[in-house]
Amino acid sequence: MRMTTGTALLTDQYELTMLQAALAGGAAHRRAVFEVFARRLPGGRRYGVVAGTGRFLDALEDFRFDEQDIEFLCSAGIVDGPTGDFLAGYRFSGNVYGYREGEAFFPGSPIMVVEGTFAEAVLLETLILSILNHDCAIAAAASRMAQAAGDRPLIEMGSRRTHEYAAVAAARAAYLCGFASTSNLMAGHLYGVPTAGTAAHAFTLLHDSEAEAFRIQIESLGLGTTLLVDTYDVARAVRTAVELAGPDLGAVRIDSGDLAVVAVEVRRLLDDLGADRTRIVVTSDLDEFAIAALAAAPVDAYGVGTALSTGSGHPTASLVYKLVAREDASGVLQPVAKASVGKPSVGGRKWAYRRTGDGIATAEVITREPVESEDRPLLAELVRDGKVVGRESLLTARERHRATSAELPLEARSLSPGDPAVPTIFK
Amino acid sequence: MRMTTGTALLTDQYELTMLQAALAGGAAHRRAVFEVFARRLPGGRRYGVVAGTGRFLDALEDFRFDEQDIEFLCSAGIVDGPTGDFLAGYRFSGNVYGYREGEAFFPGSPIMVVEGTFAEAVLLETLILSILNHDCAIAAAASRMAQAAGDRPLIEMGSRRTHEYAAVAAARAAYLCGFASTSNLMAGHLYGVPTAGTAAHAFTLLHDSEAEAFRIQIESLGLGTTLLVDTYDVARAVRTAVELAGPDLGAVRIDSGDLAVVAVEVRRLLDDLGADRTRIVVTSDLDEFAIAALAAAPVDAYGVGTALSTGSGHPTASLVYKLVAREDASGVLQPVAKASVGKPSVGGRKWAYRRTGDGIATAEVITREPVESEDRPLLAELVRDGKVVGRESLLTARERHRATSAELPLEARSLSPGDPAVPTIFK
Repeated sequence: MRMTTGTALLTDQYELTMLQAALAGGAAHRRAVFEVFARRLPGGRRYGVVAGTGRFLDALEDFRFDEQDIEFLCSAGIVDGPTGDFLAGYRFSGNVYGYREGEAFFPGSPIMVVEGTFAEAVLLETLILSILNHDCAIAAAASRMAQAAGDRPLIEMGSRRTHEYAAVAAARAAYLCGFASTSNLMAGHLYGVPTAGTAAHAFTLLHDSEAEAFRIQIESLGLGTTLLVDTYDVARAVRTAVELAGPDLGAVRIDSGDLAVVAVEVRRLLDDLGADRTRIVVTSDLDEFAIAALAAAPVDAYGVGTALSTGSGHPTASLVYKLVAREDASGVLQPVAKASVGKPSVGGRKWAYRRTGDGIATAEVITREPVESEDRPLLAELVRDGKVVGRESLLTARERHRATSAELPLEARSLSPGDPAVPTIFK
Repeated sequence: MRMTTGTALLTDQYELTMLQAALAGGAAHRRAVFEVFARRLPGGRRYGVVAGTGRFLDALEDFRFDEQDIEFLCSAGIVDGPTGDFLAGYRFSGNVYGYREGEAFFPGSPIMVVEGTFAEAVLLETLILSILNHDCAIAAAASRMAQAAGDRPLIEMGSRRTHEYAAVAAARAAYLCGFASTSNLMAGHLYGVPTAGTAAHAFTLLHDSEAEAFRIQIESLGLGTTLLVDTYDVARAVRTAVELAGPDLGAVRIDSGDLAVVAVEVRRLLDDLGADRTRIVVTSDLDEFAIAALAAAPVDAYGVGTALSTGSGHPTASLVYKLVAREDASGVLQPVAKASVGKPSVGGRKWAYRRTGDGIATAEVITREPVESEDRPLLAELVRDGKVVGRESLLTARERHRATSAELPLEARSLSPGDPAVPTIFK
């Protein structure tokens, strides 16, 4: 059996059992409002980044229970017949509002709001959280790396360290947050992310000498290619590289050793050999801290693998999906919130605004009613009456992240743990 | 554009550029051997667990470059025409050997060996590593949790905290390593993992009172259901639950507070109310350490979310895919290894055996030739001449993990960081 393109079974069982009980009990069709928010930012980070919204909109359109799905759910005894019938006809017909991709968020920010009947909205919990928790986690790490890298380009190359489809989403989130390119071809194909990549050590080892490997690579991929120079002896490899390619060699890549030290040696050697325009790309377990530590080293680009695709220590964004309001027996929408110890939530549908002063963000303002003010409204319409209306291009989202990052106070750039860069004000 | 079922673009660009250069240079058709191994176990863990092999075999059968893929690769200038032609006809025709799923592994264990031409074997690097790095990471965490839980069942419920498809693979890996069930319906459908789940706080909040929510849940899902008792006041909820369900209530779930303390109080209350067979399920950010700390608490089952699906601090297994041997110009297979600083690898095709004494593992023996001995051979034939021959059921793998875990020395059960449970001996 193969994975289907339908997304409806990417769901936790309790959503269906709640649906079944609510259908039987009569409350399934009460109007309800769910919100996605994080109680805190993981690891003392200064801001979160919204990512995955576009992927959710795609997945929502594929959220249908087909015959095979229903047959599985009923025959396994997961749902009863009436619930199976409901699922067969299920189409989300409600509204979704959300922060735009690339936007920053803070503790309590309602980054997605889902309105519908309880029945139709509860079913989306797992799909929404899976996508947003993953993509926002990658985006937060990517954004910090981009801050640390400054003007130097970042290449995303973490596919081999994470689930094969998570890798595609990670490449997308990294590009959204300022990475220049990815090694992941599916991300290039599906999302138009620029792709990059030239050779691994295996290519050098395949050939009877390093010089032969370099010669063949240059002949096939051109002088602008990147030669990997640390398979045997770095200095010898750099000499060989320039001997074969001349001063127009595109770049050399260093993937081991003390990168700051080796980069200085390689830069000096390249310059001595007249290859002063040949760039130096470094890779090897880089994260935002290692990137920052290389700021003074003669490095032209960073390749980031494991740390990017695993969220640099925080692989999930701690987002939850909570019922904040629902119709009561008399048809009135009532705010609701659980009282569980240590898991605070604020009842009621919310609106959110970014307050700025002199172009710098000063607060995340969250209200119970829409308000007119100079603060920037953060919730955009994404789905109206079940129809996706809020699609936008990845480039638009990328540009938004650039702008929203520039607007954050300087503290946001700190890599050390601390308080959120701006306070969240509940009004 | 939607994700296709083909897996060929789940690949890093450098594999295709290496292919292009090797096709042009002539070495593409040299016979080659690649090995998958970990230089170290993440976080001072005592053993690794092989998982994902079955998923890889499925993905290998779908590894075809279709017309749309080739069109993308050529029009984006990623590969040239001859390489596009090669890819259009690409079918892996080599051999794959591997450790069986559920088997333990240690630093240097060659958990997968791929033989073929360089061209056909190099293309599989990303797919193999993505699947194995993810699934082995989850499996290692799951196995430690299962050790910590002893005879108490574990429910996997981490889907909402990881990528939507990674969640399915995580549920599979958890079941492989001893979890009893998963909340993930796709894992139930695709892999036959038993599913579980009843209700979240939203169900209680949906109704005008907790008692009404409980009554409706019991009516629809039966007395054996699990009632979530921490939405408002735990003691009151437990009383309400037993009042409505009587002593045959299946279970109550506690999802907040100091679980050890609350479990004792709830157990006493349930017993006082005559519900002494009603089980207590605890959830809320459990990991192997929290599970171990609850060993003396009156808990009947654990639900594990975030920590499971993110590998409990180590979301990737540090596996690499390295060329260890290839044909030279005269047609002889030569061992190869890079000399990069801090990234040791041992050249040459390898065989692996588990040595045991009195039923307890004492060493991981890795050799350059197959040897006859009492040690258990660890490499099984998975793919012969491009055809999958090593498929097995998830239940078989689950049973293997049980047996292989039981065979590990006692030190393997230690949750604290330390040396691998057995030494790796290279012969």
